Amino acid sequence: MNYLKTKISLAAVMAMMAMPSFAQDAGDAVATAVPTDSVFVFNTLLFLIGGVLVFWMAAGFAMLEAGLVRSKNVTMQLTKNIALFSFAAITYYVIGYVLMYPGDGWMIDGWLGALGVAILEPVGLAAADADAYDYASTGSDYFFQLMFVATTASIVSGTVAERIKLWPFLIFVIVLTALIYPIQASWSWGAGVLDAAGFSDFAGSTIVHSVGGWAALTGAIILGPRLGKYTKEGRTVPMPGSNLALATLGTFILWLGWFGFNGGSELALGGVDSAANVSRIFANTNAAAAGGAVAALILTQLLYKKPDLTMVLNGALAGLVSITAEPLAPGLGSALLIGMIGGVIVVFAVPFLDRLKIDDVVGAIPVHLIAGIWGTLAVPLTNSDASFGAQIYGIVLVGAFTIVASLVVWVVIKATMGLRVDEETEINGLDMGELGMEAYPDFGKG
Amino acid sequence: MNYLKTKISLAAVMAMMAMPSFAQDAGDAVATAVPTDSVFVFNTLLFLIGGVLVFWMAAGFAMLEAGLVRSKNVTMQLTKNIALFSFAAITYYVIGYVLMYPGDGWMIDGWLGALGVAILEPVGLAAADADAYDYASTGSDYFFQLMFVATTASIVSGTVAERIKLWPFLIFVIVLTALIYPIQASWSWGAGVLDAAGFSDFAGSTIVHSVGGWAALTGAIILGPRLGKYTKEGRTVPMPGSNLALATLGTFILWLGWFGFNGGSELALGGVDSAANVSRIFANTNAAAAGGAVAALILTQLLYKKPDLTMVLNGALAGLVSITAEPLAPGLGSALLIGMIGGVIVVFAVPFLDRLKIDDVVGAIPVHLIAGIWGTLAVPLTNSDASFGAQIYGIVLVGAFTIVASLVVWVVIKATMGLRVDEETEINGLDMGELGMEAYPDFGKG
Amino acid sequence: MNYLKTKISLAAVMAMMAMPSFAQDAGDAVATAVPTDSVFVFNTLLFLIGGVLVFWMAAGFAMLEAGLVRSKNVTMQLTKNIALFSFAAITYYVIGYVLMYPGDGWMIDGWLGALGVAILEPVGLAAADADAYDYASTGSDYFFQLMFVATTASIVSGTVAERIKLWPFLIFVIVLTALIYPIQASWSWGAGVLDAAGFSDFAGSTIVHSVGGWAALTGAIILGPRLGKYTKEGRTVPMPGSNLALATLGTFILWLGWFGFNGGSELALGGVDSAANVSRIFANTNAAAAGGAVAALILTQLLYKKPDLTMVLNGALAGLVSITAEPLAPGLGSALLIGMIGGVIVVFAVPFLDRLKIDDVVGAIPVHLIAGIWGTLAVPLTNSDASFGAQIYGIVLVGAFTIVASLVVWVVIKATMGLRVDEETEINGLDMGELGMEAYPDFGKG
Repeated sequence: MNYLKTKISLAAVMAMMAMPSFAQDAGDAVATAVPTDSVFVFNTLLFLIGGVLVFWMAAGFAMLEAGLVRSKNVTMQLTKNIALFSFAAITYYVIGYVLMYPGDGWMIDGWLGALGVAILEPVGLAAADADAYDYASTGSDYFFQLMFVATTASIVSGTVAERIKLWPFLIFVIVLTALIYPIQASWSWGAGVLDAAGFSDFAGSTIVHSVGGWAALTGAIILGPRLGKYTKEGRTVPMPGSNLALATLGTFILWLGWFGFNGGSELALGGVDSAANVSRIFANTNAAAAGGAVAALILTQLLYKKPDLTMVLNGALAGLVSITAEPLAPGLGSALLIGMIGGVIVVFAVPFLDRLKIDDVVGAIPVHLIAGIWGTLAVPLTNSDASFGAQIYGIVLVGAFTIVASLVVWVVIKATMGLRVDEETEINGLDMGELGMEAYPDFGKG
Repeated sequence: MNYLKTKISLAAVMAMMAMPSFAQDAGDAVATAVPTDSVFVFNTLLFLIGGVLVFWMAAGFAMLEAGLVRSKNVTMQLTKNIALFSFAAITYYVIGYVLMYPGDGWMIDGWLGALGVAILEPVGLAAADADAYDYASTGSDYFFQLMFVATTASIVSGTVAERIKLWPFLIFVIVLTALIYPIQASWSWGAGVLDAAGFSDFAGSTIVHSVGGWAALTGAIILGPRLGKYTKEGRTVPMPGSNLALATLGTFILWLGWFGFNGGSELALGGVDSAANVSRIFANTNAAAAGGAVAALILTQLLYKKPDLTMVLNGALAGLVSITAEPLAPGLGSALLIGMIGGVIVVFAVPFLDRLKIDDVVGAIPVHLIAGIWGTLAVPLTNSDASFGAQIYGIVLVGAFTIVASLVVWVVIKATMGLRVDEETEINGLDMGELGMEAYPDFGKG
Repeated sequence: MNYLKTKISLAAVMAMMAMPSFAQDAGDAVATAVPTDSVFVFNTLLFLIGGVLVFWMAAGFAMLEAGLVRSKNVTMQLTKNIALFSFAAITYYVIGYVLMYPGDGWMIDGWLGALGVAILEPVGLAAADADAYDYASTGSDYFFQLMFVATTASIVSGTVAERIKLWPFLIFVIVLTALIYPIQASWSWGAGVLDAAGFSDFAGSTIVHSVGGWAALTGAIILGPRLGKYTKEGRTVPMPGSNLALATLGTFILWLGWFGFNGGSELALGGVDSAANVSRIFANTNAAAAGGAVAALILTQLLYKKPDLTMVLNGALAGLVSITAEPLAPGLGSALLIGMIGGVIVVFAVPFLDRLKIDDVVGAIPVHLIAGIWGTLAVPLTNSDASFGAQIYGIVLVGAFTIVASLVVWVVIKATMGLRVDEETEINGLDMGELGMEAYPDFGKG
């Protein structure tokens, strides 16, 4: 209806107002924009779906790690993974969420957030009472962000597997999730100093993955390698994972969950622009993972004449970590390439760590730390709003903080309650020694 | 645009009406409320996502149970789980859905629903033809509710594992899903007598979990324990599960699916209020699961000096069952506590059942029945609309009905076709005896 | 507000226009239709959720196949599955997507699409710049469609397992996903000749599943059966799968993913009609899977006196394939029946293939090819817009093209680099022979 071309009379106006469903017709006929309440619902839904997918990554890490440790340590690895997630869920509620998102309540401006437990919006929320009506429900934001801290902790458990005691590990997890992760995350995502410095890390190549990686690296150094992993002659003894089907399942789960990890980090779904952005992110995330897997497959074929499945799995994961700092700006081809370089990194970094006698049971340091640094450095290649200076500043600042804080915690735990199981337990397996329970009691030993 | 402060002329009105896209601008500029069609879509989407997640719980139960039985009974446990889901899908279509939601067609008012097959709305539904335009599509509602009846059946299969024959078990499942579950569910969710009495069970601590639990308990009693489980001297012989990685995977799957189970039970997503409610439910559900896991971990450490992974898994599940009756009203802290008590319940209830010589292979009775009762009783602690009287009335009424009905079915099946495999089959395993197929034929026996 | 019954004065009009949020009230009070931006978001969201679910099917195929091969070939089967998905993701980007959806750029009208890499819409898309504003974001469409080509490749890997070399297999996958699949898919879904001919295949019983099936069948014939599978006396030697828990998990994953496969193929969610349609599809898809599983369970009980779990799993999958050509039009009862016939097909087709000495390791040909044909033929039974003639034309045309193209590729690969591992490798297992890595190194051999 174009009224411009007609001479409109008052009677016409009257008639129009008199239609029983004038406003309804208005809506039916031509409304284009998403109503603000709908935006709230869409954004909230994005966080809920994203959070569920990132939750699923906890299962992915559990399966990946249970598949890559020897069968005598599987029950312990499973226990650590479900326990670390559960503790992370509690610490993030008690302190982490508010420490990470202090709003105007910084204790030290831009550096140290606020104290307090997470509080959800009331039941039956009215739009006017929403904490952030133009964003999403606090509950969905909390749910989504909680899953990221759990991911950070999951990264550590794989590296230090097969030799660390349960409770010392869990105490480290509690400090990591209550303090270390939220404090450094507040610098970027809580609008702190790194945000002000222009550091750009879309979904956490540095903030999540490298933090987990640094914590894992310091832990691996403090703990030392597994008994027999490196011979006096300098040879690395392979200790193959007990269940590659489980490890592959874990990788697929992580790949799946990553769509939520990166896609949810768009933080909006309620418009044409944000919906198209989330779509770009999904497509790019997938391309990077595929690139990492293919790169590792071809490279291990060329280097070793035999493709190595565990390298392919870690290649896919490294591709995912690499694209996480900037899954939106690249085109599909760039995303593929960024992921491929992640896959290449893994193939070279895994033996390199072995040469340093740093025993990383599942390859988490190459995947999460080194590919995480690569991904963070790659942001300015496709996103002109980012700068190499700010990226390096962020990597170094977060790295230095995490290394120092983790080292302090590892050392204090080691000095007080000890970190490592005794030799007999390590040789016989942590499952029987620490837990008295085998993962596969009915199966003969190979 | 605030016209109050301006003197508006008729010309202005004319000009306004004359804008080519007046209504569109209206929408673009300032519309806030979600249009009613969008509400329908959002609610429908909630049911579809929720239903998919609860479907996934069927896989979770299958993996949990396959991991907790001995390897000689794994094929049977897998067969039972996929078969019970499939039969439940058929019975709910043929009779269950209409029996549970009779609308105005009760056969006995408030007590016994209507007969008829489930019928979906036509292809290309017009808003005016929707069964419930202010709610969601019938297909999505059916899909979501169907998954709950399957959950009820899944609970039973774990308890009675390793000794019950396939077909007698499946016949019990058919009666449970066709009659027992829908009839008692109609009392609450179909607007029957328990709804009228003020009984409050948000997502089914009683209606789903305790019903599965009572059916399992009566089955365990009628069947008797596995051969050798309890010695004459009164000792309980541990019969450890064959694959704890699978059991842990199953637990993570169930945890994941529970977001749909509880979140979908909000039954609405199309507004600020309902979206924020669903978010609260997701966050609370996660907190309760974490609380249950941590409580079981700490308690088994204290009681037995060694944490017990199967207790941690069941602790998480008990936390989930505990919060299911009221996942919306509690704050995060209360949800955590409600879940923790669920975890404590499991640690004490598992050995208690053994003392009664009730052989519950996977611990489903502590998790689903006892924690289900606890969760239902806890509702009035956080939801002032609920009363302890009504909660107890619901628990007792549903319990009495399910016990009597289940007992009748178990006894009739036992008397006619027999329930239990012969001794030789039980000792050699149901896989070879009943199915002629091993789950892990290539692996040596431990 | 019904103005019809009141005499409205100009003053009233003025007053109404003068309300601070007239347009807002309009939205609040009575808007019903989904705004066009919201439609775009809903449709995009459907593709993202659907795509994630279909991605998950890649994990399902990997687990199903890893569970159905012998333990000595598990690492290889896992490697093939993650590699085929990754290569498919690359080829679909480089050539497949544009070849399949050429728009107006056909190279041979209706028969051969266009060349070019897939290009996503820009970051921060404006509605006016959308490739298809009334549809969904290109990124989401690409993401969703990409997963279908990967499914096609996954089907092949199961049939030709336990004897084909890695790289020859992957080269076949590259040709299949870069050329064979997109070309024939363009005929129907790219608005080519089969679309014009009235061929109706909603989500791909023919276009996806039978194409994978024909490629698998030609591969199995060219490769020949596994050593020792068929004796000279004509007996078929059972080679049971190594891990039925994994196979069952894979089936549940596929079942889950199929909701996205069929539901996403509605291609719209932004209205009452499309939301109700997607709901019908979810409910029907589930009914068909349940029907297939129950039919196979009952039939194997009747035929062999012992239910066969692998038949039940394949029965469920055959039910899913059967409903895929038309998951919308049937009622629940018809969907159940269509799926049941799929389950019956599997039970008879598996031994029939063995009689022909066609060695299909996982039963993919009965499930995807034969049930795919059945599902495509069944469309006119419930959808009056379809005709048997057009269905048969589509089946034959797609089949002939896929057979010829696949045969050429298989033969060329065989003639150049060889397809099959040597006898020693096949007997010892491809894991040690080709990859030097066992899937379950800690477990004794049975």
